[in-house]
Amino acid sequence: MTTGFDRMWAELAPVGRDGSTGGYRRFAWTRTDHDLREWFAAECAARGLEVTEDRAGNQWAWWGDPDAAPGIVVGSHLDSVPDGGAFDGPLGVVSALATVDALRAAGVRPARPVGVVNFVDEEGARFGIACAGSRIITGALDADRARGLTDADGVTMARAWEAAGRDPATLGPDQEALRRVHAFVELHVEQGRGLALAPDGSPGDLTDAGRAVAIGTDIWPHGRWRVEIPGEANHAGTTRLEDRRDAMLGLATVVHQARSYAAALGCVATVGKVRVEPGGVNAIASHVTAWLDARGPDAPAVRDTVAGVVAAVRDLGGTHEEESWTPTTRFDTSLVSRLRGILPRAPLLGTGAGHDAGILATHGIPTAMLFVRNPTGVSHSPAEFAEPQDCHRGVAALTDIVTELCTSDDRPQGTQTEELHA
Amino acid sequence: MTTGFDRMWAELAPVGRDGSTGGYRRFAWTRTDHDLREWFAAECAARGLEVTEDRAGNQWAWWGDPDAAPGIVVGSHLDSVPDGGAFDGPLGVVSALATVDALRAAGVRPARPVGVVNFVDEEGARFGIACAGSRIITGALDADRARGLTDADGVTMARAWEAAGRDPATLGPDQEALRRVHAFVELHVEQGRGLALAPDGSPGDLTDAGRAVAIGTDIWPHGRWRVEIPGEANHAGTTRLEDRRDAMLGLATVVHQARSYAAALGCVATVGKVRVEPGGVNAIASHVTAWLDARGPDAPAVRDTVAGVVAAVRDLGGTHEEESWTPTTRFDTSLVSRLRGILPRAPLLGTGAGHDAGILATHGIPTAMLFVRNPTGVSHSPAEFAEPQDCHRGVAALTDIVTELCTSDDRPQGTQTEELHA
Repeated sequence: MTTGFDRMWAELAPVGRDGSTGGYRRFAWTRTDHDLREWFAAECAARGLEVTEDRAGNQWAWWGDPDAAPGIVVGSHLDSVPDGGAFDGPLGVVSALATVDALRAAGVRPARPVGVVNFVDEEGARFGIACAGSRIITGALDADRARGLTDADGVTMARAWEAAGRDPATLGPDQEALRRVHAFVELHVEQGRGLALAPDGSPGDLTDAGRAVAIGTDIWPHGRWRVEIPGEANHAGTTRLEDRRDAMLGLATVVHQARSYAAALGCVATVGKVRVEPGGVNAIASHVTAWLDARGPDAPAVRDTVAGVVAAVRDLGGTHEEESWTPTTRFDTSLVSRLRGILPRAPLLGTGAGHDAGILATHGIPTAMLFVRNPTGVSHSPAEFAEPQDCHRGVAALTDIVTELCTSDDRPQGTQTEELHA
Repeated sequence: MTTGFDRMWAELAPVGRDGSTGGYRRFAWTRTDHDLREWFAAECAARGLEVTEDRAGNQWAWWGDPDAAPGIVVGSHLDSVPDGGAFDGPLGVVSALATVDALRAAGVRPARPVGVVNFVDEEGARFGIACAGSRIITGALDADRARGLTDADGVTMARAWEAAGRDPATLGPDQEALRRVHAFVELHVEQGRGLALAPDGSPGDLTDAGRAVAIGTDIWPHGRWRVEIPGEANHAGTTRLEDRRDAMLGLATVVHQARSYAAALGCVATVGKVRVEPGGVNAIASHVTAWLDARGPDAPAVRDTVAGVVAAVRDLGGTHEEESWTPTTRFDTSLVSRLRGILPRAPLLGTGAGHDAGILATHGIPTAMLFVRNPTGVSHSPAEFAEPQDCHRGVAALTDIVTELCTSDDRPQGTQTEELHA
């Protein structure tokens, strides 16, 4: 198993890596994405797994017939954010393939089919919508809206599909694909230090096997808000300070307020993208658009954080718009219980990141996640990392889980979501 | 005179105006720039003035022979910042042409030639260097460096010259053009409220003819600094606040510090342009580059303002680079004295804006400026404005000055600059 994992990992390492930053640029429906999809199909074919594509282009490989009985699906995605790391996504796909190898090496005879999935366009790096592949098949993302999304060059998703030799008219919800899924377990590199730190928050023992893999319990409520901060265009050299309305000063206030409220309320809040107009060195900013990302374990606290920032924006004469809001997604409690039985030492962990697992869970499919320890917590960065030994421990945990789930007949009891998906 | 001014003003109004913002987009060596240059040449030809171009492409129109005796030159520029106003530049060019009309209508017989100049690329909106036309002919901007400057699309100035049907090999210093200038007076809309406010800083009487036009005494010391603020790329949803190194928070601190130091030290300081990496909504900023523009009447105070900001940048682990520094430029004291004799009621005014007049003054050419009242002080904006009556008063003042200078034989005593141009 370890051998197969390491070989696959080494094969993926150079694909889509930027020579100067060392980060990955694996964007949906590009040449690099095509190479990754071909690689996935070839790996599945070599294992005798039948590969199908659903109406979003997600790739499913089946050991057994999922139309006879729905199966246990493992997998993740192969695309990346700009200058992303090697682990976010690929670790789950490679671990899923290695899990099939391990099951077979152990002589497991599945009572249910086992599936491996490669979700397309999870990061949304090209068209701006995260988890596009799972959102399209569940209907959470409208097909017409998806086709009309544009990348930075103005290319629509429909046009990108055509360029990739696909018919965008076929894009849409796919109940047939979803019906084949009895349960979905996504293994993912952790994107924080929940496992790397001891429970009291102090630096943990990074060799502790008991903290190498966690069971995901929920995805934090999270949202995205766009704020518009007004100013007045004027000359930077000739306008008295007291006569200015400088939108950049407003931005500075908003950035500081977001941090203050988040710290006070136990959330995280981030301004990572801004647009400054007119953007000249000698021009006072006449307008700033800024995007606020806020999340946390407690939905009311996240709402209060955003309310604090919005009040500051209003004091500046600005406005805001909620671009998205996703309430807490709790993974299937019955499935999580079974995972705890299989991995009794594994800590439980909530996460602030969105995943295809969350989209499927919200759609009512029994879903859970595993997280592999990230020693620094760094993610969405070339420095993203997990120790090889911890990755192998992840494969072993996933193998234990699939072995149990695919040889048993218990169907988990459905997923709980606190509120409807916005 | 008034009639000619108003006709010319109306003709220029639609050229290069953006339909949605109402602002002007008149950038060097574009189609719009070509139209403006053709307009200028036609106006000069209609007056029987001989138009020549120097080695930067600045247009000079002569009444009389400047090779027989150097002349009195008036004028400004026709290009704009992005979404700029109608007055910054064109007011000086139109007033210069109207002044020639007024001199002739009054039967003035110049003892020295009178020149009207249209400087090219004063705003630097396309290639990033302000006053490019005057800098090139004086040698303040190296010819090779100028040719290699690129616009936002990566087009070099050399390539832009070729596209405009010009030979970039001819670009360079032009002593011949400069030798023809006995004295230069640039009329410009004021870009602050020095004339609109009463001397005590209270709102002034905007109909007071005595405060319609000011005599410029100096250009404030000013500079531009680029600061690099480090951060660490990471996931906005999963990274604890205490584990973050968010470059956007650093930017917020720098923006506030710049304002605080400037306010405390009687300067102006502005951050109007930033670049945020990676610039994703769900990505903590790994790096911010920000540009600081600082100016003020007192050079040591400007230096201290910048030092305060730089110290804050250093505390953040960042670095800085001085992109430009121009010390105080004092206009020719003898010429300013003569202007005061001609316009005894006109207030004296320093300015925080750079002008071609400042470049010529630094090069040793006797130079002065006139400023026309701006009721709001707004400039570099579609809202930039001056009352028609005040514009006409500006033409009258310029006419009085040129009448006196072109019929007298006194040569001003040279320009004083506190330090060499950096």
